[in-house]
Amino acid sequence: MEIKSYLNNQQRIVEDGLQALMLQATGPFFKHLEAMRYSLFVGGKRVRPILCLATGQAIDNRPETANNLLPIACALECIHTYSLIHDDLPAMDNDALRRGKPTNHILFGEAGAILAGDSLLTFAFELLSREKNNTLPAEKRLRIIEMVARAAGPLGMAGGQALDIDSEKTAVPFPVLQTIHLAKTGALITCSVQAGAIGAGASPEQMEKLTIYGEKIGLAFQIVDDILNVTSTTEQLGKAAGSDANRGKATYPAYFGVEQTKIMAKEAIEEAIDALLGFDVKADPLRQLATYIYTRSN
Amino acid sequence: MEIKSYLNNQQRIVEDGLQALMLQATGPFFKHLEAMRYSLFVGGKRVRPILCLATGQAIDNRPETANNLLPIACALECIHTYSLIHDDLPAMDNDALRRGKPTNHILFGEAGAILAGDSLLTFAFELLSREKNNTLPAEKRLRIIEMVARAAGPLGMAGGQALDIDSEKTAVPFPVLQTIHLAKTGALITCSVQAGAIGAGASPEQMEKLTIYGEKIGLAFQIVDDILNVTSTTEQLGKAAGSDANRGKATYPAYFGVEQTKIMAKEAIEEAIDALLGFDVKADPLRQLATYIYTRSN
Repeated sequence: MEIKSYLNNQQRIVEDGLQALMLQATGPFFKHLEAMRYSLFVGGKRVRPILCLATGQAIDNRPETANNLLPIACALECIHTYSLIHDDLPAMDNDALRRGKPTNHILFGEAGAILAGDSLLTFAFELLSREKNNTLPAEKRLRIIEMVARAAGPLGMAGGQALDIDSEKTAVPFPVLQTIHLAKTGALITCSVQAGAIGAGASPEQMEKLTIYGEKIGLAFQIVDDILNVTSTTEQLGKAAGSDANRGKATYPAYFGVEQTKIMAKEAIEEAIDALLGFDVKADPLRQLATYIYTRSN
Repeated sequence: MEIKSYLNNQQRIVEDGLQALMLQATGPFFKHLEAMRYSLFVGGKRVRPILCLATGQAIDNRPETANNLLPIACALECIHTYSLIHDDLPAMDNDALRRGKPTNHILFGEAGAILAGDSLLTFAFELLSREKNNTLPAEKRLRIIEMVARAAGPLGMAGGQALDIDSEKTAVPFPVLQTIHLAKTGALITCSVQAGAIGAGASPEQMEKLTIYGEKIGLAFQIVDDILNVTSTTEQLGKAAGSDANRGKATYPAYFGVEQTKIMAKEAIEEAIDALLGFDVKADPLRQLATYIYTRSN
């Protein structure tokens, strides 16, 4: 399997899903819906929804399972997009560029961007709970909603971002950096894998292994982000390079240097792939996604 | 029944519920959780959770139903509180005072306040989906989650706030003002009533009547807010009086004058109470709540 063409294919499935599920920008709320759509469709690797779909596929590759998982995958992308909009705000990271394009508040103003983020977060829970076209039992859907809310909430992504901002320009002990990474980035990535597992009917043993896979690639993803922020140009990243150092953010390279950090990322990826022992060829996309997360350039 | 003592009693039930369900401020996320707790416990009339509980009680006054509704009621208050925190931000209404106390961003900074709001919104969906201590069937809980997400999202509360901000200092036609009120304030109030109805097992006919009740008091609530903003002092309101006119906001009094607007609020309240014909004495709290919404002074 060629990972590039797999990713392109899955990205198209996610884009089509988002286009079908996302509200159209019409009526009195036109501008607000436009602001939501702008950031949702401005690009992006779609890592979280693809992880969700690939995890489902690793367990059960029937079309019905993929259909049930698509709104969940799209909801995860809505939550990720909301977090980027809010992270970029002047009061937070104050970034003007994201994915090579102007950030949401540059185009829609600060109030417009805050509310676009709020609505994307809220709409995600509408997607997760909507009655239409879903054969997943209600109990499982509730379990997924609870899991997503925990991963994105005060002890997950939003809490991690709060801790990250508070820790700027302070000498953060390594365990605090780990807590920030785990909450801010790791939780939603791990949850994307777990949601796919629940939605595809994973056994408890499968769930345990996939959770380890999710945790390890969540860690690797953030470490690689830290490395790219140091080693890439703004053009390569599509967002401001070197911004972590400028803001005095604690990062893995700041503790261990770039070379040692690369080794740590590679180890996490290997542990992720090892966790998939016992899964058959249906889990090959997950294995290749792990490698892609290590080798990606933005 | 004395409405004052009923409200005091219900407020205590909601406060106790929030204290029991809300995360404690400990550990690495201490400051973030403190920011969430500050706005949640700084005061408030608790109108939405009380409406939810009173609607449930109007249909079925067994303790089990009240127990099932309490986390839903608390989730509605978390969503309302998040909306106040974001509305008060410098990029939006730029208010320094709320409930007679400093607003969230005055104490926790803009980034801290944005994230406290984000986490309260997300935590609300955790409360709505949590497995613990809930005998409500999963299908009903999903239906409530979907309804709450719609009421709070892009075509509801958040969209209404976006439209409200965009419409400042412009000559807004009356139908647009109605759309703003309906989305920004009405949707979550109506949803509070509907969630209580679903959680207590309302019949389709009961649901229809209670929806009218919810819509009418939602309308009355916002009209009375508009009136109080004109006729009260900052001390009475606990927030900046006269702020609507200063910001060039479209309001009912700006269209119709204070006296005519009062008549319109009274009519909406009467229609709300009329919608409860056929409900027995268990609906008396709902009837008195309607009157309270008309006569409240902040």
